[in-house]
Amino acid sequence: MATEFDVIVIGAGPGGYVTAIRSAQLGLKTAIVEREALGGVCLNWGCIPTKALLKSGEVYEQLGHLKDYGLAAENRSFDFSGIVERSRKVAAQLNAGVGFLMKKHKIEVIDGSAKLEKGDPAPKVVVALKKGGARTVQAKHVILATGARARTIPAAGLEPDGELIWTYREAMVPKACPKSLIVVGSGAIGIEFASFYRALGAEVTVIEALPRVLPVEDEEVSKAAQKAFEKRGIKFRIGASVKKLSKGKDGVTVELEAGGKAETLKAERAIVAVGITGNVEDLGLEAVGAKVEKGHIVTDAHGGTGVPGLYAIGDVAGPPWLAHKASHEGVHCVEHIAGFPAANLTAPIPGCTYSQPQVASVGLTEAQAKEKGIKTKIGRFPFKVNGKAIASGETEGFVKTIFDEATGALIGAHMIGAEVTEMIQGYALAITMEATEAELHATVYPHPTMSEAMHEAALDAFGRVLHI
Amino acid sequence: MATEFDVIVIGAGPGGYVTAIRSAQLGLKTAIVEREALGGVCLNWGCIPTKALLKSGEVYEQLGHLKDYGLAAENRSFDFSGIVERSRKVAAQLNAGVGFLMKKHKIEVIDGSAKLEKGDPAPKVVVALKKGGARTVQAKHVILATGARARTIPAAGLEPDGELIWTYREAMVPKACPKSLIVVGSGAIGIEFASFYRALGAEVTVIEALPRVLPVEDEEVSKAAQKAFEKRGIKFRIGASVKKLSKGKDGVTVELEAGGKAETLKAERAIVAVGITGNVEDLGLEAVGAKVEKGHIVTDAHGGTGVPGLYAIGDVAGPPWLAHKASHEGVHCVEHIAGFPAANLTAPIPGCTYSQPQVASVGLTEAQAKEKGIKTKIGRFPFKVNGKAIASGETEGFVKTIFDEATGALIGAHMIGAEVTEMIQGYALAITMEATEAELHATVYPHPTMSEAMHEAALDAFGRVLHI
Repeated sequence: MATEFDVIVIGAGPGGYVTAIRSAQLGLKTAIVEREALGGVCLNWGCIPTKALLKSGEVYEQLGHLKDYGLAAENRSFDFSGIVERSRKVAAQLNAGVGFLMKKHKIEVIDGSAKLEKGDPAPKVVVALKKGGARTVQAKHVILATGARARTIPAAGLEPDGELIWTYREAMVPKACPKSLIVVGSGAIGIEFASFYRALGAEVTVIEALPRVLPVEDEEVSKAAQKAFEKRGIKFRIGASVKKLSKGKDGVTVELEAGGKAETLKAERAIVAVGITGNVEDLGLEAVGAKVEKGHIVTDAHGGTGVPGLYAIGDVAGPPWLAHKASHEGVHCVEHIAGFPAANLTAPIPGCTYSQPQVASVGLTEAQAKEKGIKTKIGRFPFKVNGKAIASGETEGFVKTIFDEATGALIGAHMIGAEVTEMIQGYALAITMEATEAELHATVYPHPTMSEAMHEAALDAFGRVLHI
Repeated sequence: MATEFDVIVIGAGPGGYVTAIRSAQLGLKTAIVEREALGGVCLNWGCIPTKALLKSGEVYEQLGHLKDYGLAAENRSFDFSGIVERSRKVAAQLNAGVGFLMKKHKIEVIDGSAKLEKGDPAPKVVVALKKGGARTVQAKHVILATGARARTIPAAGLEPDGELIWTYREAMVPKACPKSLIVVGSGAIGIEFASFYRALGAEVTVIEALPRVLPVEDEEVSKAAQKAFEKRGIKFRIGASVKKLSKGKDGVTVELEAGGKAETLKAERAIVAVGITGNVEDLGLEAVGAKVEKGHIVTDAHGGTGVPGLYAIGDVAGPPWLAHKASHEGVHCVEHIAGFPAANLTAPIPGCTYSQPQVASVGLTEAQAKEKGIKTKIGRFPFKVNGKAIASGETEGFVKTIFDEATGALIGAHMIGAEVTEMIQGYALAITMEATEAELHATVYPHPTMSEAMHEAALDAFGRVLHI
């Protein structure tokens, strides 16, 4: 059958729109379908606007510690709607930016909801257009990048109503800052909202079912993170299961159980951040024969679904649910389609949490290395003895490095502290390039920077640390 | 002759004390001589306390823009002596830290001024002790790490008096913030002080003899830096030679010439930051036969001076005058002495300026690559389209990458913007590991971070940029 496009991408989050751009760069005629807003959840309701909120929170919190810097100001205050409005403007600016990029690369944007039907050489894409009516598109290749959404657990009442019980979406645009808040789930999303609302003075309690906060991080980082958050006044219930979340007139009640003990907590609002589930519904996946498992589409090493011409990348293809993982997979997928040397999918995916302090990591945790039976050499360096950290008054946290003893290769790096989300890329490159300790030791890290702790942590793993 | 130590290090700045620590780690019996304070200029009067001042300045400046973040506070003010006192406390803390490290590694600290005399197997070190008297030490190896000090030009009146005309030293501990300030020299030191005093509201004019600010940086960075500093209200006289700097009752007058035109400027205080000269005097260098050229000791690839057993590292061995270059050379030198595989001296030395915005670079500038006849591929990415930068309200600046077209290797990287001093280590590692564009493209940079601009600048050099 005649094809209208070489590639059609379904979903215009970072995974989708980056895939479309790369596709166009490779000379493929490309279209993208989006049912809501260019940029997807990440850009409109996730990564980006939360960073704007968090920045306001950080600056506000700093206003409470001006004396530390020899400074003073009176009557600190925040305009909550101003903070929220700023974050919406940031999202709107980036959304417009994606529109510009689509035009520049001559990528046709089709506004509507896509559904697959059997087709040749790939499934047909039937788009229920926003403006009304439908359009059927036959392309050579279809890439699903429909993303994910917040998981809910209706049985325990963990079902957002948008008023008293929020997902990330409502938590981003409330009318007022709640005086008290319960956050269910201590992954990156839960912790970032806890950090933001605490910065503005809310009483925040975080409930985590697993035995530690930020459960995907290295255990030492989880421990230090909880301690640091508690110092800021955030309360935790760890290893606690929510039995029932119920709504009152203007507040919520949580019944939980931890260590065999029952407890009841009350707050003005609750945020449910108990995970993510892929947007696999209403796509016609069954009709075309694509396989779904545990809420995500099953794919091969290139994003292939087993259905000729049909691929899936990003959140809908499974964890980690991170925008940079999605765009990386998308670039790989479309380079593979184009017969271009495809992006290296073995590159490690760093993870970041933009709380205060920040958390960033890449590669294996100590426990994961152990599980794999790898003998390790482990280095640590605390920021409290780093000159730049002391000069900046940012001494919280540390760097931990994990090396394979047999090869000397860096296999994991874990950081907690100020600005670590900007620093982790150095370790991501190191692991991608299979750097050994010798290469990390030989690299000159500028003085005075917090990044010197990255050098020291690599030296420490081999008994060569300089400043402890 | 019987030797008392394997290694004696003269000078306890970062170059010296790190060399001593590494020496002790390698099992060498080590002593260190310091005439003033452990940590040297860098830690007591340079890198570290300036970062404390700059942090106070940054936070104060942010207090003038709170509305941008939906925040407010009234009557911002600073306690100048509080700011200075904080920076002194930071220096004192680190100075004490070095003392602890010397004890931990059983390095004998000898307080006094060292002078060399002929000796065997290395020059003898005669220390005029602070407490009075002298002590002569014979070691197997002597490593000079005496550092450098501000250059002065008495003929033009560029001679600090500590009252009206300052070097970095007085500029760090004045009694009050001057209302107006002239900074002679736009290298990192001059620019950092200009940035700090401007943040506190001083009228600042920077005079630079060369045709651009931060003359060691890539030309594009110099241009952007000047523009950014001017936006903050700093004034510049570029390509301007100071004919005469003279003192009045409570102020200074500068007569300068730029483009054939004479001009007279007045200010309360002046800072002279026209360069650095090695501390080569009164060391007995001539007596032992060590060669001095252009204000620094001439050394071979391992720091050897040609005099048996005598080495020099860091500032006193020549530019770049950077603490991390000094400690890197020192580690190499003492590993070479110990017969340990010595640190790779070909690793590039990053450079950082902690102004607002920050500047950081590593490897070759575009002009340097051209001079060497290297055909290049150049990439650029501005922070104004980076999501994290927009969310943080830090959109100033850009990243520029320079690749060797023939090999694909990254040979230079240049950054201006917020937090770039913490980000540059990723490129330092890349150049140290001879990373090519393929490896930088394959690396996953976390989203949303400013460091994504590092990825984009590498993609841009090869026509693959995603977000412009």
